Amino acid sequence: MCAACDHTIHRNSIHHGWSRDFAPVLSARPGARIHFECRDASDGQLTRGSTVSDVAGLDFGRINPVTGPVFVEGAQPGDVLKVTIHRFHPSGLGWTANIPGFGILADQFPDPALAVWTYDTTGQVPAAFGPGGRVPLKAMAGTIGVAPAEPGHHSIVPPRRVGGNMDIRDVGEGTVLYLPVEVDGALFSIGDAHAAQGDGEVCGTAIETAMDVELSLDLIKDRPLAAPRFTTAGPVSRHLDAAGYEVTLGIGPDLLTGVRESVARMIDLLADEHGLDPVDAYMLCSVCGDLRISEVVDQPNWVVSFYFPRIVFA
Amino acid sequence: MCAACDHTIHRNSIHHGWSRDFAPVLSARPGARIHFECRDASDGQLTRGSTVSDVAGLDFGRINPVTGPVFVEGAQPGDVLKVTIHRFHPSGLGWTANIPGFGILADQFPDPALAVWTYDTTGQVPAAFGPGGRVPLKAMAGTIGVAPAEPGHHSIVPPRRVGGNMDIRDVGEGTVLYLPVEVDGALFSIGDAHAAQGDGEVCGTAIETAMDVELSLDLIKDRPLAAPRFTTAGPVSRHLDAAGYEVTLGIGPDLLTGVRESVARMIDLLADEHGLDPVDAYMLCSVCGDLRISEVVDQPNWVVSFYFPRIVFA
Repeated sequence: MCAACDHTIHRNSIHHGWSRDFAPVLSARPGARIHFECRDASDGQLTRGSTVSDVAGLDFGRINPVTGPVFVEGAQPGDVLKVTIHRFHPSGLGWTANIPGFGILADQFPDPALAVWTYDTTGQVPAAFGPGGRVPLKAMAGTIGVAPAEPGHHSIVPPRRVGGNMDIRDVGEGTVLYLPVEVDGALFSIGDAHAAQGDGEVCGTAIETAMDVELSLDLIKDRPLAAPRFTTAGPVSRHLDAAGYEVTLGIGPDLLTGVRESVARMIDLLADEHGLDPVDAYMLCSVCGDLRISEVVDQPNWVVSFYFPRIVFA
Repeated sequence: MCAACDHTIHRNSIHHGWSRDFAPVLSARPGARIHFECRDASDGQLTRGSTVSDVAGLDFGRINPVTGPVFVEGAQPGDVLKVTIHRFHPSGLGWTANIPGFGILADQFPDPALAVWTYDTTGQVPAAFGPGGRVPLKAMAGTIGVAPAEPGHHSIVPPRRVGGNMDIRDVGEGTVLYLPVEVDGALFSIGDAHAAQGDGEVCGTAIETAMDVELSLDLIKDRPLAAPRFTTAGPVSRHLDAAGYEVTLGIGPDLLTGVRESVARMIDLLADEHGLDPVDAYMLCSVCGDLRISEVVDQPNWVVSFYFPRIVFA
């Protein structure tokens, strides 16, 4: 419960995908502070006691439910919805999966895999992973957005101009996110929380978890915005950078190939140095490793870098 | 001068491009600590008093000289050269240019531009830029590598399997870089130092500067490596992250388009909020903004994020 909140939206008020035609579950004035109860990305299909066979049997029609939508009074196309994330309420239970066909190395990892996590709800204690790994936590919202102007039903999977499944590590506590409004009332929804995720979310899942969110919705009138942007309140990597990084590279003319090479090389390094099964190393990279572009100007070869925080095995 | 060094290589011992046929300027035993005197990337063509017309008149045949090569005794193809960067000796004078045809937004910024910097050689005081900007410093080596196996002369511009012009922000003090050896003696060279650079080096230049480097060269025998990798001794962003970040996004199916959109949106934001000329904002992004890939798994749309440190205008 959130004493400071004006509204609470129950975890049964969900939708799948995006549509301008979804009926709002709440109409709120600009400035409202709202408590969203959010389910995990599997909608409860993966939980304590789940096994790898449950990954293979996932019902994809239920994937990535979001809580909402909220109709923001006065919001019109051409406005900006300003979302201030105040606080997460982590549930303490999460999962990471390699889902066949999903993830940047889907061709190299065709078989399902699953890790179930129990984690500290204060976020202060790293979460244990495999033999000796300790993953620092930082709560974030993977899917956050408003309804697109185009009629019809739109898949929840890809992010778009109005946000959605952006899976940005730093959309966390204190972040202010600006979203372009395309329909009357904006129709804001949120879900797909992660207890930890690296830049890239390379295997396709993070520490997926049920986690409530408190946030405020404000309106900036008549300020067209081409794409979402955000401001972080402070540093974004200090929870995991104290021991530095191992960094592997992908060098060449195609960024996506560079992504794949840099990640595959980190998996090899982690498997070699820490005895991890490669698919476990892949999932570990997804929850705490960061994809950066070191240079994209020295033609014809760009450098993609994958940063793995050494503190995980320190 | 470096009292702890075994050798000093004079700034006249340079070469342009890479070749297995270049004569070594030094033969050193593994474990040697060497002081490299390094020229700036323009080879002195841009300096205090230079103007934008000097950018237009650059002799590209002299661009990016590197100091070396060093023949490492016992190094053979299949070995790894371990490079430990101990210390930089910044000169205090630098430049950043928009060079026509170069940079990720070359089509949008066809005209030359130049900023000349004087900066604190201890690295403790941010460097002033335009109206009110203060850029935190972190010395790094833009070009660091060994000779490729392929015969002939190879351009200095693109990085490759054996390193070279990788322009990686975090190849700084304390970093240990591992390079694949492809020719006898490795033939190691270094240059193109930067007093500050963001991930991506988006306009194509950083704070380009003459800066000596002290480093050690060690050999790991018979350990084939597909690409360079490195280890940082500690955090990599704390010099600039204290006030958080402004972040703009490029969302879509092509990473390079996402790079271009996220950078162009940050230029617009900086121009709008701080009254910068767009080309100045572009150069500022290049010296201190970071390109990250937030997600590359939510098909078909990836999210490229450009992080600009708010401390620059705090």
